[in-house]
Amino acid sequence: MNPDTEQQDLAEPYLGGLLASLGLDVHYSRAEKDTLFFREETGREVPVLDFVGGYGSTILGHSNPEIVGYAKELLDQGVPVHAQFSKHPYANELAQKINAVIRREFATTESYSAIFANSGAEAVEIAMKHAEFDRVARLTELAGEIDGNIERARAAVAAGAGVDGSGSYGRLATASGVSFGAAMEEVIAAVRAANAPRLAAAPVFLAPEGSFHGKLVGSVQLTHNAGFRSPFSALAAQCRFVPVHEPDALAKTIESVRRTVFDLAVDDGAVRVVEREVPAVAAFVLEPVQGEAGIRVFDRRTAEHVRRTCEAAGIPIVVDEVQSGMGRTGAFFAASHVGLQGDYFTLAKSLGGGVAKAAVTLVRASRYRREFELVHSSTFAKDAFSTSVAIRTVELLEADGGRAYQLAAERGSRLADMLRKLQQEFGTVVKEVRGKGLMLGLEFHDQSDSSSEVIAEQARAGLLGYLLSGYLLRVHALRVLPTASAVNTLRLEPSVHLTNAEIARLEAGLRGLLTVLRDQDGAALLQAGPAGASAA
Amino acid sequence: MNPDTEQQDLAEPYLGGLLASLGLDVHYSRAEKDTLFFREETGREVPVLDFVGGYGSTILGHSNPEIVGYAKELLDQGVPVHAQFSKHPYANELAQKINAVIRREFATTESYSAIFANSGAEAVEIAMKHAEFDRVARLTELAGEIDGNIERARAAVAAGAGVDGSGSYGRLATASGVSFGAAMEEVIAAVRAANAPRLAAAPVFLAPEGSFHGKLVGSVQLTHNAGFRSPFSALAAQCRFVPVHEPDALAKTIESVRRTVFDLAVDDGAVRVVEREVPAVAAFVLEPVQGEAGIRVFDRRTAEHVRRTCEAAGIPIVVDEVQSGMGRTGAFFAASHVGLQGDYFTLAKSLGGGVAKAAVTLVRASRYRREFELVHSSTFAKDAFSTSVAIRTVELLEADGGRAYQLAAERGSRLADMLRKLQQEFGTVVKEVRGKGLMLGLEFHDQSDSSSEVIAEQARAGLLGYLLSGYLLRVHALRVLPTASAVNTLRLEPSVHLTNAEIARLEAGLRGLLTVLRDQDGAALLQAGPAGASAA
Repeated sequence: MNPDTEQQDLAEPYLGGLLASLGLDVHYSRAEKDTLFFREETGREVPVLDFVGGYGSTILGHSNPEIVGYAKELLDQGVPVHAQFSKHPYANELAQKINAVIRREFATTESYSAIFANSGAEAVEIAMKHAEFDRVARLTELAGEIDGNIERARAAVAAGAGVDGSGSYGRLATASGVSFGAAMEEVIAAVRAANAPRLAAAPVFLAPEGSFHGKLVGSVQLTHNAGFRSPFSALAAQCRFVPVHEPDALAKTIESVRRTVFDLAVDDGAVRVVEREVPAVAAFVLEPVQGEAGIRVFDRRTAEHVRRTCEAAGIPIVVDEVQSGMGRTGAFFAASHVGLQGDYFTLAKSLGGGVAKAAVTLVRASRYRREFELVHSSTFAKDAFSTSVAIRTVELLEADGGRAYQLAAERGSRLADMLRKLQQEFGTVVKEVRGKGLMLGLEFHDQSDSSSEVIAEQARAGLLGYLLSGYLLRVHALRVLPTASAVNTLRLEPSVHLTNAEIARLEAGLRGLLTVLRDQDGAALLQAGPAGASAA
Repeated sequence: MNPDTEQQDLAEPYLGGLLASLGLDVHYSRAEKDTLFFREETGREVPVLDFVGGYGSTILGHSNPEIVGYAKELLDQGVPVHAQFSKHPYANELAQKINAVIRREFATTESYSAIFANSGAEAVEIAMKHAEFDRVARLTELAGEIDGNIERARAAVAAGAGVDGSGSYGRLATASGVSFGAAMEEVIAAVRAANAPRLAAAPVFLAPEGSFHGKLVGSVQLTHNAGFRSPFSALAAQCRFVPVHEPDALAKTIESVRRTVFDLAVDDGAVRVVEREVPAVAAFVLEPVQGEAGIRVFDRRTAEHVRRTCEAAGIPIVVDEVQSGMGRTGAFFAASHVGLQGDYFTLAKSLGGGVAKAAVTLVRASRYRREFELVHSSTFAKDAFSTSVAIRTVELLEADGGRAYQLAAERGSRLADMLRKLQQEFGTVVKEVRGKGLMLGLEFHDQSDSSSEVIAEQARAGLLGYLLSGYLLRVHALRVLPTASAVNTLRLEPSVHLTNAEIARLEAGLRGLLTVLRDQDGAALLQAGPAGASAA
């Protein structure tokens, strides 16, 4: 190896430098339940209590012994990881199991088809692609109807009908420059010329403000955080971010992106120019519990409002359960708490049981376009290994009458009680405790005018949440991180195995942190601690 | 489970029906080296010799015992699959190992930074995102320079300089409507108005005709096959597909997408309107051996032509080695055979050793924008499990002085010799044998005017390659598939473990197939065979 580059970190060194400056550059070598372990230079293994949980990937804990044992069995059996374009009965088995959950949680009989992926962002992109495939199919049907109507109008004019200058003729004239009283063929040419760009225009996606749906070329445009999204905005179709809690915001946004095309109608012996609505919005995409926006729960009233508004406008709803799903909130689907049955659901993270890279997009039968199966595929997706691990994961969640969901609710409630107690105790520091089940957020008041220069400076740089995470790691051996787009909120997404003793450990650590913040003791925040001193 | 949906296949049933109609709906339950096994109804395990190899994912064979053993070790050790935002030394180790290969194969000293992904399509999207990030940064620098020049011009006019109506003033006037002899502030407003949409316009990607780079929202636009791409063309930035073997095609395409912005220059006491080139093309993306287009090797002359042309235009080259890389062609990078050092490389498929979902994008130091590390991430990527498996895979390829590469070259050469022998023997049926190492294609002459109705009909439907695959599976227990966008070409991508006996088995099966085709014996193609009769 070339000594010049051997020293150089070639895997995200800039990020590595940031992690080091925050005291977060720990190399974890082992994981078990809710604990990650690192080794000190002396060789001593140091346990760190992990509340990040792979951003929601470890609902059953790290290295879950049943999942790991099953994964090893699959490897021993030599199940084919690569058998593309053959029969994959396990994929259907997983789809069936998830469908059974959908039927139960949403009291529906409609089935959902499953398309497989390798990450949450890929699952979102499949939903985007399918929604667009469906929209384009509807556009094509519409264009075909207009062609038929043009033929009928042409025949009517040949049979003596006149062209009526009322209705949308004026708007067609404005759009195309065709004059009033123009010949039929000129009107037809104007209709076609005006329609072509309207039919070909890029779709619009809608999402609530604060949304996070991944960072691939398409999905990053559904991610509200401008830092992640804007540099890439010329790469893909755009999303309008809606303040969904404002009563008329969604309807106004839909109205603002409304597009029509021109059509011809024949009644009472006259040809009239009419307008037809174009499906301009491909989908409304939402997280039932927004993760990166700071753990914000979609309430039932807003959910019902979104559902009705989208239904009236014919817009499909993609419920992104990548982070909130798989039992984390006390139900398999977080959306089931507010009765929001998606036209699409996406699942990933915990679907792989904390071991495999599994992801799936579910599409409601009434929206499903089966031809999509012939145009979309992925070499790594729908493999026997990750799909089988996902089946086992769903089975473990469903076991004992859904004991895992009860645990998520009960453990989450206990954790939330502890956080709320701290909020009462440290009201000047803690702004809010939010979340559902084991998806909780602890928001701090803005500290950018802190009397501690260190605290104020880091808060103004948007790094305070990370600085606090570094403190908790070094001093209290706790792994906590802020949410990506709301850095004053610490996320807590442990597994269902979280014990009371572990909640007590978190409480002690947070009490230490909150005391430091209440006392605006910047120096204490930077102190080296027993846990992380030798880790960094 | 609801009996109504229990019967229904919910995981791509339409594709399943197609597979069934082609006799390809076999459920493989075990995989080993180059063999996939299915079970007959009697319970008998039937071996099928696999030349699909996960579309190039199994260079070391299915269920490679060293990879599987290591994967199990990692699971036993409980290496953290989920330790995001911490130190990942194994990621750097993998990057270092790949860099050592790059230095050797391209005789370069420049290092490449590594960004991790979960699939080949994701790796391509990272390259797209990074190239756009870089392009936008260059645009921002350019816009900043123009702002500075505007200030200088404004100062010069204030000090008495005049505005020169020559140079690009006329083009500015055309673009903006500004009149000759307009006041300085009007000229400045015209420059800004004309520039704004040119700076914000979507980037263009370039790729050779026949390209395949995946099927996510962005990457599918780099995939030439209109069936996969067109339904989604309104979703993402567009690609121009270039017939790169035509001498001037690339230069002409680059010229056709050329864009300029207006700038102001001050010389000799006069302000002149000038034009500056905008980086309109984000990247040229290519496969050194086109896979889905029918296994087509990029030749040295074309490679050199592309390299020079892109270099002259300042366009970065993304060398997509997702299918061709990892030793398959007799070198780690297929591009190294033709001396085409990419600004970017993508790797996936065999990087995961046939077991893990591993993918990586490598970016040349001189192109690398480190700020990208703060805006891109993936929950599942850069994990200890897949990264460690990838390290072991690279180690196995590099072992014994690169014995795997020698094997790929030698086994591939032997396989190609056999195919060429069949080509000579069946010249009326076999059109061409193409490829490099263990990435080979066998193209049939178009059969759409066959005297056999079955053959002609399937050929016209674009399904002949699949029908032939079904025949080879049923009658000869051979797994072969056509390439996705050139369905008259059968792909052969076995592992380095391919034996002479296995080559002889393929020869016997292909001879049977070619005899059937030469004799235009459609009935024989549909016959049930000993191997697959009970599999379907």
